[in-house]
Amino acid sequence: MSSDRLIYLPLGGAGEIGMNAYVYGYGEPGKERLILVDIGVAFPDMDTTPGVDLIFADITWLKERADRLEAIIITHAHEDHVGALGHVWKDLNVPVYARAFTANIARRKLEEHGVPEETVQTVSPWPETIQAGPFKLGFVPISHSIPESSALLIETPGGRILHSGDFKIDTDPGVGEPFDADLFETIGKSGIKALVCDSTNVFSTYPGRSESELPSEITRLVGEATGMVVATTFASNLARVRTLARAGEAAGRSVVLLGRAMRRMIEAAEATGVLVDFPKVISAEEAQDVPREHLMLIVTGSQGERRAATAQLARGKYRGIEMKEGDTFLFSSKTIPGNEKGVIRIINQFSEKGVDVVDDSSGLYHVSGHANGPDLQRMHALVQPQIMIPMHGEHRHLRKHSRLAAENGMATALAVNGMMLDLSGNAPTVVEYVDTGRTYLDGTVQIGALDGVVRDRIRMALNGHVVVTAILDEEDEPLGEPWCEVMGLPETGSSNAALVEVLEEDLNQFLMRADPRTLRNDDKLEEGLRRIARQSAQSEIGKKPEVTVVVSRMR
Amino acid sequence: MSSDRLIYLPLGGAGEIGMNAYVYGYGEPGKERLILVDIGVAFPDMDTTPGVDLIFADITWLKERADRLEAIIITHAHEDHVGALGHVWKDLNVPVYARAFTANIARRKLEEHGVPEETVQTVSPWPETIQAGPFKLGFVPISHSIPESSALLIETPGGRILHSGDFKIDTDPGVGEPFDADLFETIGKSGIKALVCDSTNVFSTYPGRSESELPSEITRLVGEATGMVVATTFASNLARVRTLARAGEAAGRSVVLLGRAMRRMIEAAEATGVLVDFPKVISAEEAQDVPREHLMLIVTGSQGERRAATAQLARGKYRGIEMKEGDTFLFSSKTIPGNEKGVIRIINQFSEKGVDVVDDSSGLYHVSGHANGPDLQRMHALVQPQIMIPMHGEHRHLRKHSRLAAENGMATALAVNGMMLDLSGNAPTVVEYVDTGRTYLDGTVQIGALDGVVRDRIRMALNGHVVVTAILDEEDEPLGEPWCEVMGLPETGSSNAALVEVLEEDLNQFLMRADPRTLRNDDKLEEGLRRIARQSAQSEIGKKPEVTVVVSRMR
Repeated sequence: MSSDRLIYLPLGGAGEIGMNAYVYGYGEPGKERLILVDIGVAFPDMDTTPGVDLIFADITWLKERADRLEAIIITHAHEDHVGALGHVWKDLNVPVYARAFTANIARRKLEEHGVPEETVQTVSPWPETIQAGPFKLGFVPISHSIPESSALLIETPGGRILHSGDFKIDTDPGVGEPFDADLFETIGKSGIKALVCDSTNVFSTYPGRSESELPSEITRLVGEATGMVVATTFASNLARVRTLARAGEAAGRSVVLLGRAMRRMIEAAEATGVLVDFPKVISAEEAQDVPREHLMLIVTGSQGERRAATAQLARGKYRGIEMKEGDTFLFSSKTIPGNEKGVIRIINQFSEKGVDVVDDSSGLYHVSGHANGPDLQRMHALVQPQIMIPMHGEHRHLRKHSRLAAENGMATALAVNGMMLDLSGNAPTVVEYVDTGRTYLDGTVQIGALDGVVRDRIRMALNGHVVVTAILDEEDEPLGEPWCEVMGLPETGSSNAALVEVLEEDLNQFLMRADPRTLRNDDKLEEGLRRIARQSAQSEIGKKPEVTVVVSRMR
Repeated sequence: MSSDRLIYLPLGGAGEIGMNAYVYGYGEPGKERLILVDIGVAFPDMDTTPGVDLIFADITWLKERADRLEAIIITHAHEDHVGALGHVWKDLNVPVYARAFTANIARRKLEEHGVPEETVQTVSPWPETIQAGPFKLGFVPISHSIPESSALLIETPGGRILHSGDFKIDTDPGVGEPFDADLFETIGKSGIKALVCDSTNVFSTYPGRSESELPSEITRLVGEATGMVVATTFASNLARVRTLARAGEAAGRSVVLLGRAMRRMIEAAEATGVLVDFPKVISAEEAQDVPREHLMLIVTGSQGERRAATAQLARGKYRGIEMKEGDTFLFSSKTIPGNEKGVIRIINQFSEKGVDVVDDSSGLYHVSGHANGPDLQRMHALVQPQIMIPMHGEHRHLRKHSRLAAENGMATALAVNGMMLDLSGNAPTVVEYVDTGRTYLDGTVQIGALDGVVRDRIRMALNGHVVVTAILDEEDEPLGEPWCEVMGLPETGSSNAALVEVLEEDLNQFLMRADPRTLRNDDKLEEGLRRIARQSAQSEIGKKPEVTVVVSRMR
């Protein structure tokens, strides 16, 4: 009997929505050959990751086993699935496989890091397959909110896994392949050991709605508008972008695409043939000669991103275009939790300009790209897996999805990032806990989430920063008085004197009275000065700042 | 003919939800006698106000006219209406009027600042009135999500204003007076010049639901639960707190109140007689001897506040109580925009513990305290004002509410903070723009929003902080090399040397080559060192930090 095993190890995406990175392995325990499915990013926020540019899974575990890695698979071109490819590829150095549109985007990511484009190999959809070590891999077309999304059929000597990727059940998604229930039923009939399945919308209790429900409503809205119409959606949702453009065209409006991501996506989609019949567009410059009631702008920034076109139009002019009283702005999108304040700020800015904002509260202008609860159950039923492993969700989503499967008699396990499951038996078992975490791209540097860099920034933001400098002469006697620089603190406090002066006086008192042992010892001296600065600030302004002490000795 | 005029000036609350502060004036232009209606707070967030404790309206304008101020009126005891009273009262120094329950809370606020409790005068509801200068004021009971909320009937020689306060139309609110349509109709018939009206829920298109719809559903939920039940809501929503407690009692559970605000509110409500028949409660200590399936906890922290009971229970034990698999946690509340991430974090923490979380997505366990669109129109119709001024809302709410009034033939104006309206004529006119803004309570210090303190904190959080120190001797020659302290920045960058060393080397190069004029001039020297530090960091780590330069001269 073979001792080989089939393992599943999420490094990212299980316990959060974002930064997807799933490892599968097959072989002798500890020597499994591996594949990585997706390597995406999550986005920073001011609360927990101020100043950070991007977040992705810590792939140290995989890096240390790069010699066992056969391939990287990208299921679709959303940033949370492909966004980190360029940042980590050199540490892994294996071929990347994806379908044409996804490959086009993946190559752009690698190009920015000087990785040759041949690294990404374009694959055809299932039933064609590729072989990567012990894995036979098929890219099964599945509907989602971006073209050419794929579920991944992973065949190994230890059994067949269907990794759903992100998906919804939409038989008429506009752009990209429709959901083909027969196909998944057929795959299911071949015997699926484990379905590893998207959990994003498990809490939605009604069947998901089709992209095809939107064109009529959007066309009506644009047709009835009188001023300029501007609409935002995710640039990667090409079906939606085309629907918006066609609605503009139908209303006799010239269509303008604004925002880099918007133009880049259309380019990639046209280059790979996934997008056809896209209406003619004009440039922002040309738009300036068109009466506003004959314009339809499609722009980036549906999540309120400060530098995107939407936010810039809300603040003022963007590329010569300015919105005015009587114009309409449409959010053909939903606001991702955490982005509400930014989006609301923009809506209020538009309100100040007299622009009518139409958001998704009516449900008429947006549908989700993920399968709802009933759709997930339908997928389970089509594929009939022995085991259902929930992925792509926060803990609450994974738990709910797992329960759903258990209620329907499937074996299941809730595996969060770092939990390695052995899928070889009839039910999944946890065989190892792997240290995982997050890597922050900060400027051009990759730092660990626990390096303390971001923690220090948060502390400075909450408490302000005081730098205390003291100079000691050759005999370890203070040379002059210590001085302070403060940043992010009020200028004056309870005594109505300058905070800096109050601190400096207290610090000087301390230094004058310090015994020689303290003065000789850098650590003691720093600790003493820090303590005094914090106490002094606390009594003066009711706040204990972060303190950096610089002791300089004239030796 | 009298030249006296009747003015309205929002200092806070018009253009935002929170920090309400509305001024009314009557008299000769520029010499009007004034009243202030409400003085509340808004809550800080990491995005825009890191480290700040509370936010309230900048009352400089009022302070400079304190001799013309007759009274402060508090319409109800929510923090966004009374929370800043203690912080600003000494600058205004006038009597405070409120109904009994509100007065109880207001006195506690003043007591913390050593202001005598007689400052707050308890008033009886309309038709009783008080006189404050030219204003005859009546506190008209109106339903909201806290007891004894009042609309304010402001009678002046220039006409009658009805200031709605926060309200909903609820004829069975459980605790507090029911909405009395006849009363408002009667008041309307006496002739209302201007209705100044709550706009919070203007976008909700269905009539508001009554608090009385909740007890049966909540009782059913608690009755069916098997483990411990913990529920959170706003402590000030005493009807809800009582409903939750009664549901616990009905299920044979002992009721425990956790969180300071929860106990304080019950105390104030019982002391002033607005809350009767509240079930017997036991302490957290006593709860430890009660089997978990016989416990019902009602706790603070529905908005995910990190230090409140809910967040602490999600993280671990709180006052000896720990939630476990099979327990139920109920959010009998809605999440205020901006708080989503914190609340979701808590739900996931509960999920990890195996606790079943019930939120408001079903609509069964929470109703709003504000009038919806149709209710606002009903209020307009009851009161039949000549002018409708929207307040208590962001710009988008005020705009929508104003439109609603205009469509129904009322005169209206959209006045945001700082816009002074003259209400003397048939339609409102803007007569002045007053400088307004926000005051931050930061530790124990009040700082202006534009003082730069918080801006510097945000910059440090986004960019990190470098402190450069250089010492120059009596001849303005560098004494040793300059040195750096960095906080919130990666330790190493592209050259793989310590960032600090790279910076120090570049700074030293600069200093060595600097001409005597630069070395003699503090400003030039600082500017040069800052520029070098930023350039050097940019090339090393791809980020331009905040830089503080300290030049010290041995003179």
